[in-house]
Amino acid sequence: MRKLLNRELERKTVEQFRSTEKAPFIIVLDNVRSQSNVGSIFRTADAFLTEAIYLCGITSIPPHREIQKTALGATESVSWKYFSETLTAINELKETGYKIIAVEQTEGSVALQDVHIENDRRYALVFGHEVNGVDQEIVNNCDLCVEIPQFGTKHSFNIAISVGIVLWELNKKRLPF
Amino acid sequence: MRKLLNRELERKTVEQFRSTEKAPFIIVLDNVRSQSNVGSIFRTADAFLTEAIYLCGITSIPPHREIQKTALGATESVSWKYFSETLTAINELKETGYKIIAVEQTEGSVALQDVHIENDRRYALVFGHEVNGVDQEIVNNCDLCVEIPQFGTKHSFNIAISVGIVLWELNKKRLPF
Repeated sequence: MRKLLNRELERKTVEQFRSTEKAPFIIVLDNVRSQSNVGSIFRTADAFLTEAIYLCGITSIPPHREIQKTALGATESVSWKYFSETLTAINELKETGYKIIAVEQTEGSVALQDVHIENDRRYALVFGHEVNGVDQEIVNNCDLCVEIPQFGTKHSFNIAISVGIVLWELNKKRLPF
Repeated sequence: MRKLLNRELERKTVEQFRSTEKAPFIIVLDNVRSQSNVGSIFRTADAFLTEAIYLCGITSIPPHREIQKTALGATESVSWKYFSETLTAINELKETGYKIIAVEQTEGSVALQDVHIENDRRYALVFGHEVNGVDQEIVNNCDLCVEIPQFGTKHSFNIAISVGIVLWELNKKRLPF
């Protein structure tokens, strides 16, 4: 099984990426502390043709050396926008018809594998601070909470890993690729 | 939707983790450079009750300050073993009946969503170096190559993100949790 060369992977250029129809997901980062996580999320969002990333509160924005180390250029392809208040981002998304999903462990949360994705809707996926998670006030303003089942000793996944698993699963539900 | 407190998540203690039956997956890290990635992989492996992590070649081993920063203690729960040569690990796994899957972009690779998991088999999942991927000689010794479909400008996912997506998907195939 010969490994493929990078040029054989036929990836998009930044220009092609920008003009391609995106998957209907906007990632909202509610006060994410680590620039390394933010960069990693840009790289994953690029791979899944994500519509945009909304960076909120203390979340760092590009250009930033630490973001760049893990984004590896994906800050050039993926659209992003900064909001000083996460609630402002949520309200703007609601007004434009997005269904707001917090990825958080709450009473009444739905397991990721059971989430139903409608093909004609757009979704905002809210991920929170590395230690504190999504703020309770933001959770209160979401339409749904989704939880990734886990079975070990740790309380949560790293946020960049959560973004990877959630984007994979929801994109797979949307279109059997 | 009230956020759950850590104690309400009812996670396992390290002792409970060790005595619990594991998911039949061993992660093989073929010359992974970044300690931060290794630690992150430990944390994810803990969440999915992974059998073990085999650290090979230049891959750092615990205890290590940089691994600990992202593992957050998961090096205490998840079993691991070091091999100076990845091929030695692969051969040992083959001899003990594991099916060896490289996560790599190759000719004839199978898309992750199409992989068939047999409930009575055990699997080794091989992930490679951040830039060079799984070594071609190791790929030649695997039973199958699996690829995570991606649609953006970047050539690959970060390795810790790949581990998260692959463990999620294969565990979900094995048991509808």
